[in-house]
Amino acid sequence: MPKRQLLPALVWVRRYDRKSLAEDLLAAVIVAIMLIPQSLAYALLAGLPPEMGLYASILPLLVYTLFGSSRVLSVGPVAVMSLMTAAALGSLALSPQDYIVAAMTLAFMVGALLLLLGLFKLGFVANFMSHPVVTGFITASAILIAFTQLPNLLGVSAHGHTLPEMVPSLLGALGDANLSTAILAGLTLLWLFWSRKGLAPLLEMAGLPAVAASMAARVSPVVAVVLTTLAAWGWQLDTQGVATVGQVPAGLPGFSLPSFSPELWRTLAGSAALIATIGFVESVSVAQGLAARRRERIDPDQELIGLGAANMATSFFGGFPVAGGFSRSVVNFDAGAATPAAGFFAALLIAAATLLFVPLLVYLPKATLAATIVAAVWSLIDFSIMPRAWRYSRADFQAVTVTIVLTLLAGVEIGVASGILVSLIVHLYKTSRPHVAIVGELPGTEHFRNVARHEVQTHDTILSLRIDESLYFANTRYLEDMIYAMVAERPRLKHVVLMCTAVNEVDMSALDSILEINERLAELGIMLHLSEVKGPVMDGLQRSDFLEKLSGRVFLTQHQAIEALKE
Amino acid sequence: MPKRQLLPALVWVRRYDRKSLAEDLLAAVIVAIMLIPQSLAYALLAGLPPEMGLYASILPLLVYTLFGSSRVLSVGPVAVMSLMTAAALGSLALSPQDYIVAAMTLAFMVGALLLLLGLFKLGFVANFMSHPVVTGFITASAILIAFTQLPNLLGVSAHGHTLPEMVPSLLGALGDANLSTAILAGLTLLWLFWSRKGLAPLLEMAGLPAVAASMAARVSPVVAVVLTTLAAWGWQLDTQGVATVGQVPAGLPGFSLPSFSPELWRTLAGSAALIATIGFVESVSVAQGLAARRRERIDPDQELIGLGAANMATSFFGGFPVAGGFSRSVVNFDAGAATPAAGFFAALLIAAATLLFVPLLVYLPKATLAATIVAAVWSLIDFSIMPRAWRYSRADFQAVTVTIVLTLLAGVEIGVASGILVSLIVHLYKTSRPHVAIVGELPGTEHFRNVARHEVQTHDTILSLRIDESLYFANTRYLEDMIYAMVAERPRLKHVVLMCTAVNEVDMSALDSILEINERLAELGIMLHLSEVKGPVMDGLQRSDFLEKLSGRVFLTQHQAIEALKE
Repeated sequence: MPKRQLLPALVWVRRYDRKSLAEDLLAAVIVAIMLIPQSLAYALLAGLPPEMGLYASILPLLVYTLFGSSRVLSVGPVAVMSLMTAAALGSLALSPQDYIVAAMTLAFMVGALLLLLGLFKLGFVANFMSHPVVTGFITASAILIAFTQLPNLLGVSAHGHTLPEMVPSLLGALGDANLSTAILAGLTLLWLFWSRKGLAPLLEMAGLPAVAASMAARVSPVVAVVLTTLAAWGWQLDTQGVATVGQVPAGLPGFSLPSFSPELWRTLAGSAALIATIGFVESVSVAQGLAARRRERIDPDQELIGLGAANMATSFFGGFPVAGGFSRSVVNFDAGAATPAAGFFAALLIAAATLLFVPLLVYLPKATLAATIVAAVWSLIDFSIMPRAWRYSRADFQAVTVTIVLTLLAGVEIGVASGILVSLIVHLYKTSRPHVAIVGELPGTEHFRNVARHEVQTHDTILSLRIDESLYFANTRYLEDMIYAMVAERPRLKHVVLMCTAVNEVDMSALDSILEINERLAELGIMLHLSEVKGPVMDGLQRSDFLEKLSGRVFLTQHQAIEALKE
Repeated sequence: MPKRQLLPALVWVRRYDRKSLAEDLLAAVIVAIMLIPQSLAYALLAGLPPEMGLYASILPLLVYTLFGSSRVLSVGPVAVMSLMTAAALGSLALSPQDYIVAAMTLAFMVGALLLLLGLFKLGFVANFMSHPVVTGFITASAILIAFTQLPNLLGVSAHGHTLPEMVPSLLGALGDANLSTAILAGLTLLWLFWSRKGLAPLLEMAGLPAVAASMAARVSPVVAVVLTTLAAWGWQLDTQGVATVGQVPAGLPGFSLPSFSPELWRTLAGSAALIATIGFVESVSVAQGLAARRRERIDPDQELIGLGAANMATSFFGGFPVAGGFSRSVVNFDAGAATPAAGFFAALLIAAATLLFVPLLVYLPKATLAATIVAAVWSLIDFSIMPRAWRYSRADFQAVTVTIVLTLLAGVEIGVASGILVSLIVHLYKTSRPHVAIVGELPGTEHFRNVARHEVQTHDTILSLRIDESLYFANTRYLEDMIYAMVAERPRLKHVVLMCTAVNEVDMSALDSILEINERLAELGIMLHLSEVKGPVMDGLQRSDFLEKLSGRVFLTQHQAIEALKE
């Protein structure tokens, strides 16, 4: 499918029909209604003016429609990316205007990075984080996000991007809490949490079809936005200390350049890499899961291009880093989006809303947006991974725990970085100590078994080792150490035979190690042999000078080796 | 051997005898003579006063004797660590006094890090770099080191820690070259390079025993130091523009604290981690190689403790980061050091030299020291890894090339970091696309083979897949993607069977992935089964809720699976 590579849209556009149009339009309406309050809220979470959330919801949807490979992924502001944007920019002490430019620059860098990875087909780097670590990170981020919203819910101001920063700041500010804000926030939260479970059954009882009732329940945040805005306007709640969104410039975003200051780029480089990683991992997980439900496929490298293009596009029109969100994509999927055109239409609807309704946001209480954020991230908090990991694997449990604790205590950036690191360390640790068995021949057969488990025949002068792992740089030192230890204990030894049945790969570090072992053993008058080497591994050995340097021989079977070497 | 853990010295001290004493004393004299000029030179390379090289050679040797597990490793200033120290501190714009304190602080941090890793038995992290990458890094560092010495050899001043910085600076300064310095440096270099190959045979012809001749050749740098110092003194070369070491404070270093400024620690943290990694990797490689020659063993975790203690000790007495050097350890080994006491005696001799001879260094030309550095690192430059890697494995070749190029162009720190990263990426890339074969039954047997290579029997409703790799986070996404792709092509499919003969491990990411696949397939009316699951993997599955959730069954053999599932 070479044509899909650059513009996957060409595939579905040709077959587009009236039925798909109807399905896509319906999905678009539902998604747009859901996205509008969410977009406003996530912009505030990122520390940006609310309208930027709308800006970041329009172009990314359009651009992803053209370049992305998933048919249902909905790309725009998402909670974790917004929190990471705030963490990246919050410590830079920028003026509000510079902060906005820095957010656009971050989107440009994230987009450029994703695009480059996609063009070089490096989508596999998304595999650097293990599932449990991603789950742990999302849970910890969701907790952090909920904490960042507490000041808005209570009408106080507090700061910080980690628990140790936020908790004291929040406790100190509690005395200033605004009762009207807290009541408004409390009622909104009650409505949002109740409507999730209680609204759909109620609507069904009232005669609505099940699907329509479930869709209607999804747009309950919009109801909250409309009602609380009306309440704030009618009762002039701003005079009672309820913070509102205030005057927002109407109209679509204009074209403006992100910054190309080398200093800003250097400062943001690390954050951009981490945000890109998280955005891609989240998007691909969501897209892959949804595609499989319809027997469709996505292409991770094409996803990189789609997400990269979406981020770069929005960076020129007042946006900030975006990704494919879980909840928005699921809504799109459940609402029956037939093709990516659903996203296209949703973008047009949001653009229309931006033109028409933004002036009405003057009286929208910030506490309402904070409540929608808390309700949205609440479902991301999932500690069930911890007992599951504890039971299944201590190493995975440690990795999750470290990620959660560090994210909460030291912030999202250190959280992601340590998550990647811990995933890798756990993997390397496991494979760095491969299972190695000393084997002997089962009498009367040509089978070789572990001497610790079977009554087998061995020889004083021959040490036969079966290595149950591919050999690569992480375990070569262990291999050397182990063989030297065994040799040191066996003064009569003349031959060491490595039985390679389970060795799928020998990288160059391992090749050098085996040659080093070969040389050391030769100095002690011991010959090194191999047996049962797999085809591809043997091909590699033949391309190097290994076979000339090996003091012993390569035997086809372990049995032949013993027959030839025994005295 | 629990007693070895804290003080390995207790083992050999109890059996110490007169013969060992004689052997150790001889080795100590040879090593001390060789180390003195090297230590002075490496201090200059690190940007420090020469006497600090001597200081850093005394305590680390003593302390390592007590805590290290290698019997012959010689710990002190080494070329690559000195270059990395210069790179870490050079860009900080410190006053000379602050620079010294920062170097001591770096030694403290490196020591503390190594000690912590050792106490937590995390020696395996040294395996994060593949052999070819380490080799490439050492080669590139050696080239950088040679370049840093060119200004001293020519009597000009130039600056920089990377080729793009050094080359223009050097070219610009060429016009100021000092002829006397250049002649002196040229003669010293000629002597050093010639004495390596030509001196020992000459001494043998003159009647010296072969071993003695080879040892005498090793101390040729001392001859260069003495002769050029005498020449500089006799001919007053300093008046002709030959830079000399100058007045150096006599006596042993006093106790002084490294800095505990949080700001300095934050600045140096990354550098300390990289220096610790390189120091440990180099020391363990040298120690392991030499130990194996005598059927002895080293303990990597104990090495961490030994090196950590050595660095922490020297940080309180005017030292800078140290490690176990290759050339110094080989000399110690070849000179017949019987026990670590050889290092102890060498330290005492260097201390005596520091007390007695330091005032004589006034006239030692810096060009002489630069020449000994160039001669020492020359043998580290080894590009043969590149053609070897090219032939054996393109992935390893790319890793080496990236490491060498980045080290030369962007400096040692980025070089090491990218070396680690590239090693890991190459490994993850290889294992992220495991070999998966669709298998069918060889007619008339119970054997299953790849359908692409054999005439085998398959069923339209059953897809049997053999996965030739452990399943872990790096390849789960690939597995999902591949299975969904195969399912999408086969509308009649009812069963997918994963044949797990070659799966040594299933980590939690893979477990989640298989459950996700299981759920997606169930939605499509397809059941997922496993066959031939290894014992330890099955134990893990039983600890989780996997078996309850699996839509299909776990079969003992693939044959049983097909018999049960075929229609």
